[in-house]
Amino acid sequence: MPSAAIGRVLDAIRARRPLVHNITNYVVMNTTANALLAVGASPAMVHAEAEVEEFVGIADALVINIGTLSPPWIAAMHLAAARARTAGKPWVLDPVGAGATRLRTDTAFALLQHRPTLIRGNGSEIVALAGGIGATRGVDSTAGDAASLEAAKALAAATGSVVAVTGPVDRVTDGASVWSCANGDVRMTRVTGLGCTLTALSAACLAVEPEPAIAALTACAILGVAGEIAASATKGPGSLQVAILDRLADLDAATLEQRARLS
Amino acid sequence: MPSAAIGRVLDAIRARRPLVHNITNYVVMNTTANALLAVGASPAMVHAEAEVEEFVGIADALVINIGTLSPPWIAAMHLAAARARTAGKPWVLDPVGAGATRLRTDTAFALLQHRPTLIRGNGSEIVALAGGIGATRGVDSTAGDAASLEAAKALAAATGSVVAVTGPVDRVTDGASVWSCANGDVRMTRVTGLGCTLTALSAACLAVEPEPAIAALTACAILGVAGEIAASATKGPGSLQVAILDRLADLDAATLEQRARLS
Amino acid sequence: MPSAAIGRVLDAIRARRPLVHNITNYVVMNTTANALLAVGASPAMVHAEAEVEEFVGIADALVINIGTLSPPWIAAMHLAAARARTAGKPWVLDPVGAGATRLRTDTAFALLQHRPTLIRGNGSEIVALAGGIGATRGVDSTAGDAASLEAAKALAAATGSVVAVTGPVDRVTDGASVWSCANGDVRMTRVTGLGCTLTALSAACLAVEPEPAIAALTACAILGVAGEIAASATKGPGSLQVAILDRLADLDAATLEQRARLS
Repeated sequence: MPSAAIGRVLDAIRARRPLVHNITNYVVMNTTANALLAVGASPAMVHAEAEVEEFVGIADALVINIGTLSPPWIAAMHLAAARARTAGKPWVLDPVGAGATRLRTDTAFALLQHRPTLIRGNGSEIVALAGGIGATRGVDSTAGDAASLEAAKALAAATGSVVAVTGPVDRVTDGASVWSCANGDVRMTRVTGLGCTLTALSAACLAVEPEPAIAALTACAILGVAGEIAASATKGPGSLQVAILDRLADLDAATLEQRARLS
Repeated sequence: MPSAAIGRVLDAIRARRPLVHNITNYVVMNTTANALLAVGASPAMVHAEAEVEEFVGIADALVINIGTLSPPWIAAMHLAAARARTAGKPWVLDPVGAGATRLRTDTAFALLQHRPTLIRGNGSEIVALAGGIGATRGVDSTAGDAASLEAAKALAAATGSVVAVTGPVDRVTDGASVWSCANGDVRMTRVTGLGCTLTALSAACLAVEPEPAIAALTACAILGVAGEIAASATKGPGSLQVAILDRLADLDAATLEQRARLS
Repeated sequence: MPSAAIGRVLDAIRARRPLVHNITNYVVMNTTANALLAVGASPAMVHAEAEVEEFVGIADALVINIGTLSPPWIAAMHLAAARARTAGKPWVLDPVGAGATRLRTDTAFALLQHRPTLIRGNGSEIVALAGGIGATRGVDSTAGDAASLEAAKALAAATGSVVAVTGPVDRVTDGASVWSCANGDVRMTRVTGLGCTLTALSAACLAVEPEPAIAALTACAILGVAGEIAASATKGPGSLQVAILDRLADLDAATLEQRARLS
């Protein structure tokens, strides 16, 4: 995968300003909206059962993130995902905490019926979705890298979705091929919701790039590069959260391509 | 409208610390609360049907912002607005995304029955509320300036509410007269929820200023001046969001009056 | 209470990374999660009735914060608190706005049946919970210091919970003894949700320290010291909110013990 592809995706986001419809968790709504604005997309948070299908119709991509669940939200997630599927709009599933509670695992599984374009999770979540036995501790990942990758490949093969299993090295797979992105900084793990941000950025990329693996890898590189530049110039997680938004806004395609560590 | 009026409103907020009751969207709850605290008001976020009427009774002003809707919240909005109306408390309607989905348009329309003191929206939202045909793309405005102003005047004349239609230049109208505020910075459009912040600041101003047009114009000037000072000293949208809070806190009446570009 | 005890609690959080289950309000979800991550704990926000009991089972401590209530959340709070009680997991009640509306007062009272390990509130809230007649204005405290302390002692004696009544000087009592922490900075009152942050940090301390009074006092000292260091180097409430997270992350046990003003 040539690095020039990811620069073109970033430029396309800025040129087209895709409208990203988010049904996401309460913790990250503000930071996710800001990350989408910073990178050049247009965010909307819309979750009422009475309006999600209509809104999918005007959106360019959909995020479904199960981080804070309740029954009406689950119903809205199904309505929105089903509409995205029939309307041919790309959508991303973020199975936050799958494996931690039965509700989360079951909800994430049930949403697979709507054929997400991309599934983006940490190792534990992907292992749980793949029917594995990885123990999940809260919303942090404890699955090993090799087990996570095998689970991701199996999940992609079984569902037809591209799967991104992210961590110190992000892996993207369609079930056969595997691409990696090694950007980012360990200090990013001290900022809440950056996985959710990555999911939202993936949706922005999917809105402008028809190949899901390229879109997912671009999002990993965008956040990883912005995050490592930000981390090198800040002295704590509060400043880092702020600086990531600044760096998402001023990241250009040339810098992205030059710094991306893809393989 | 003499600029000295807006300085007096700002000073009155600091002196009286009005309690602003917010029924607002999930995306902006933290930033709105912080903006109200920064400017000198006291925020509360209270949305349960069982308590909103009681809380309106102790609040000095009410915000109803339809940014993230669901049925129980809509019910609570009606209870709160009706109580504000009967209790003579000022209240502001922010019709976020009116025109984007039928639920939003219908909800905003229905709330007009409670006679908001002020309606604050972007051009697309005001056009939609005025029964116009402006196409709304997500929560961003696409309506032209002239069409927005005509819609604002028509909406004000039809409802008796003062209407603030905000954008590069903010316009405030009571249906007959029009006042403008030309402060702000284009970089503020990259920070999520500043329109919602403006609505909340308007409520703080309404709590201390009986003339709604002066209150609305003061809020436009406060956020516009704080935002342009902040933008001139920051290098990205993350830093800008933070700096706006700092500048809201240290803005004084003299600076506000001197920098406000009113007409 | 020797100051060395509080340094050990901080070190234990970093060593054990306790999983803190939060059922908390929308305003502070992001900032609370970030504060827990910054200090070294692992946060999760989980509120669905279908999963809270299961999640309490894997968590090390539970926060119940009534800041933004609705009927399904209240039901989930009872399920979670009851499970924490039977499972022997420490839990903290934050009675946000008790005294301001009947719903809040009643909800906080009803949750006492599950015997919170710690109750953390401002003076007005503690007075309201103690059945007093302190007038509450919004979510800010108006109760006097002496009345607050008497209410805290009475509440602790009646419930068997340790009670922390916080303000310019934080007081922790088991109904008989009273310990104080005089750290913090008045500028922290301009940042929304720092009381909620203190509650969440208390839960992290309770997860690693069996003596609730020591845990509560440690949390007061951690936030107070981090806050006063942050306030001395920032110029407004936006910067202060960010800097507090940075200082929570780099605070070490020696600095904490040296700067803590305990008595």
